[in-house]
Amino acid sequence: MSKGEQTKARMIDVTASLVRRQGYAGTGLNEIVRESGAPKGSLYFHFPGGKDELVAAAMVAAAAEWRGRLLSVLQACPADPAGDVRAICAALAAELEGSGFAHGCPLATVTLETAAQNEALRAVSAEHFRGWEALIAGRLVAGGVDPARAGPLATLVLSGVEGAMLLARAYRDVAPLERVAGQLAEALNAAVGRGREAAGPPAG
Amino acid sequence: MSKGEQTKARMIDVTASLVRRQGYAGTGLNEIVRESGAPKGSLYFHFPGGKDELVAAAMVAAAAEWRGRLLSVLQACPADPAGDVRAICAALAAELEGSGFAHGCPLATVTLETAAQNEALRAVSAEHFRGWEALIAGRLVAGGVDPARAGPLATLVLSGVEGAMLLARAYRDVAPLERVAGQLAEALNAAVGRGREAAGPPAG
Repeated sequence: MSKGEQTKARMIDVTASLVRRQGYAGTGLNEIVRESGAPKGSLYFHFPGGKDELVAAAMVAAAAEWRGRLLSVLQACPADPAGDVRAICAALAAELEGSGFAHGCPLATVTLETAAQNEALRAVSAEHFRGWEALIAGRLVAGGVDPARAGPLATLVLSGVEGAMLLARAYRDVAPLERVAGQLAEALNAAVGRGREAAGPPAG
Repeated sequence: MSKGEQTKARMIDVTASLVRRQGYAGTGLNEIVRESGAPKGSLYFHFPGGKDELVAAAMVAAAAEWRGRLLSVLQACPADPAGDVRAICAALAAELEGSGFAHGCPLATVTLETAAQNEALRAVSAEHFRGWEALIAGRLVAGGVDPARAGPLATLVLSGVEGAMLLARAYRDVAPLERVAGQLAEALNAAVGRGREAAGPPAG
């Protein structure tokens, strides 16, 4: 990686971390330049679109890193929807506690701040969330949920987990994630049971 | 109401509306003074604690107004948990669509922006969300859910609805609220059935 590429990558990392803790509007360009130790002129050199281009790149990078980490949690799970959701919620709870409740969803804060007025950042968020809905729905079908029900149930799982992270940050307590994991696991077990009934008894 | 009280109330209203659309950090004191048409000195006269005191007052006012509106939606419902959640999600979807997807939860944005660094505002959010959890749990018990399960299920309902509003803003589409309402209604109907079984057949 060239020195310029290193500077660019460091600016993206710093931005992702600041935005996650304090949001889009609360993160100033001077703070990003200072914390990344980059020469001031390099910001517009690497990101001619300025703050919005840099924040969009940071959202994409944070989303990809997060996705990678959560997928590795899932790889360690049996293909069981209830077990998946418990493992993911436990990983999110550990991240929240380990960061003093600063690290929730890396995209939620920016989404709420900017969705009404910044189409480019909204599009990044939408793509990220749609990707998670599709991934969850696929795991549900693989785990035995009726495909017709997997889409709406995936929306509930993602919504429930996002909302639980919001409550956990407000309370400084991971209890909402634990409660939501338990309730979602119960709903998923019920859906798996019904999916299996609808499919008939296993052949052989 | 005296002229001073009117000015104070107008500043609170304007702040609530700005914060809901663009968050805490994105809302400047100059913008609040300008939009409320208040004399500049009146801000620190009415809110000696400055921006944080004003934003806390705006959050309390917005939460109370929102609670009043949603309670009036619930009053028009039969005491049926699944019907409650469908009616609330329909009201939230109408508010989102009517505001060009600017009006989601009046507290969620500030909560995510400030929870890690502003204890006073975090406490306002926590009290608000705990109030909703208690209210939902009470409605669930009244509707026939086993009291031992009503608490965790109320956390799922609140989390699911908050997360669905986040997705709806990201997608500019109320479909997540509709899907979550349907899935929560199904989970609540199942819980009511089990609560009734546990309680035994109705007397008489």
